[in-house]
Amino acid sequence: MIALPEMPPDFRLVRVEKDGCLFWGVLSGDSRHVYPLSGPGHGAHRVEDVRFHPPVTPGKIIAVGLNYRAHGKEMGKSLPEEPLLFMKAPSALLAPNGHIHLPRMSRRVDYEGEIAIVIGRRVSRISPEEVPLCLYGITCANDVTARDLQKKDVQYTRAKSFDTFCPLGPVILTGALPDDRKLVTEVNGVVRQDARASDMIFDPLTLVSFISQIMTLEPGDVILTGTPAGVGPLSPGDRVSVTLEGVGSLVNTVTADPDFSPDLPV
Amino acid sequence: MIALPEMPPDFRLVRVEKDGCLFWGVLSGDSRHVYPLSGPGHGAHRVEDVRFHPPVTPGKIIAVGLNYRAHGKEMGKSLPEEPLLFMKAPSALLAPNGHIHLPRMSRRVDYEGEIAIVIGRRVSRISPEEVPLCLYGITCANDVTARDLQKKDVQYTRAKSFDTFCPLGPVILTGALPDDRKLVTEVNGVVRQDARASDMIFDPLTLVSFISQIMTLEPGDVILTGTPAGVGPLSPGDRVSVTLEGVGSLVNTVTADPDFSPDLPV
Repeated sequence: MIALPEMPPDFRLVRVEKDGCLFWGVLSGDSRHVYPLSGPGHGAHRVEDVRFHPPVTPGKIIAVGLNYRAHGKEMGKSLPEEPLLFMKAPSALLAPNGHIHLPRMSRRVDYEGEIAIVIGRRVSRISPEEVPLCLYGITCANDVTARDLQKKDVQYTRAKSFDTFCPLGPVILTGALPDDRKLVTEVNGVVRQDARASDMIFDPLTLVSFISQIMTLEPGDVILTGTPAGVGPLSPGDRVSVTLEGVGSLVNTVTADPDFSPDLPV
Repeated sequence: MIALPEMPPDFRLVRVEKDGCLFWGVLSGDSRHVYPLSGPGHGAHRVEDVRFHPPVTPGKIIAVGLNYRAHGKEMGKSLPEEPLLFMKAPSALLAPNGHIHLPRMSRRVDYEGEIAIVIGRRVSRISPEEVPLCLYGITCANDVTARDLQKKDVQYTRAKSFDTFCPLGPVILTGALPDDRKLVTEVNGVVRQDARASDMIFDPLTLVSFISQIMTLEPGDVILTGTPAGVGPLSPGDRVSVTLEGVGSLVNTVTADPDFSPDLPV
């Protein structure tokens, strides 16, 4: 559990490092400055002068499979009757602008742009109507997946939990829900995924309520709400961005182990 | 990440609460007294006077499926070529003597007695030979599983991560490996699982090394090494114990939601 700052709604919260000091801040409307909520000095810091961290360090990262119809179709899967849950290891967390590392165990690693929900209060067994009371906000995530290992293992754990496989942030829009926001994933500037939050099969309130019937949710816990159609492989040197309307863009670059072999058949 | 006390090998470490104060202690050879390493007063506390907590609060709980041949057979599964990983939510942690709660979503909840490995140092990509350097010790775990939901979801996450589905402890034997220790699970005093650590398909050193190729391991992380043959259902009022030779016994009782229906077919 982490202490998240008490914030009014509709602030763009970030967590940044400057001169070795880590602090919370609010990103300006033009995304050019960070206004610190605590930490070193007063006044604005230019975004070029700070290093972005993931905006939270979740105790658990719960994710939902096949939550957009068109993605289910492209994966050749029938749609689940209930939300299909899996988890990513907290050790997979990656900061904005950090390098996604293609591991030697895999031959095919895919991006999956997603909307992430950040939990703000400890809750258990809540109704969909009660969910807004426990929400801290929303941010961008990339549910990076070793597609070949996902197929081989059937269990998603290994495929989804390599170090660096959970880029998150940089901005939490506080007090917000996904609503009908546009979610766009680009690789090297080319749009690969383009969907709206309203395309989800299980909407965010239903998802959080469902998960809370199973697990107690803690402040800082993160729920990834599923990826739309258009997933595809990453190669060394790629630049992948996940942009959530009204929130921000999560940008990461890709590097590889020396013996990563993306050209082999999956 | 949590701070584990620096300990020489072969101590039986516990974490207990007395008069609202939580502290580490060493369990006496006859298991009748706890000698505090810190906290209230000096001298021994009688075990009847303290409340046992899980000996660690893991950042992640990584588990291994089908790691005993006879259990693979009873589940009708072919054995995996590589360790089959899944995770349990840290929020599923349950203290020794705590109640395993049968959830209304499931109609069949099974015990799975297991040996748990506790990590003592942050490591990544280590060889089997290096594993002893990062081990903190071993303890008992119960990988409680909603068997019907495990089959329905295919992904194990929901079935394995209900609150109270990860009893752990009470004793960590520091600096120890599972070696050839006997692992026995009893329900209401009747032996249901009886195996030796040497029956594992992937031995503990191989397992930890394998997992470390995927995820950075942190102090306090826990690895459940798989369950032997003999799994079976729990009913309200049952008393289930997992005993690991030379370490200790993990005892829990079972309660149910009012509308839990164990008699329905799975």
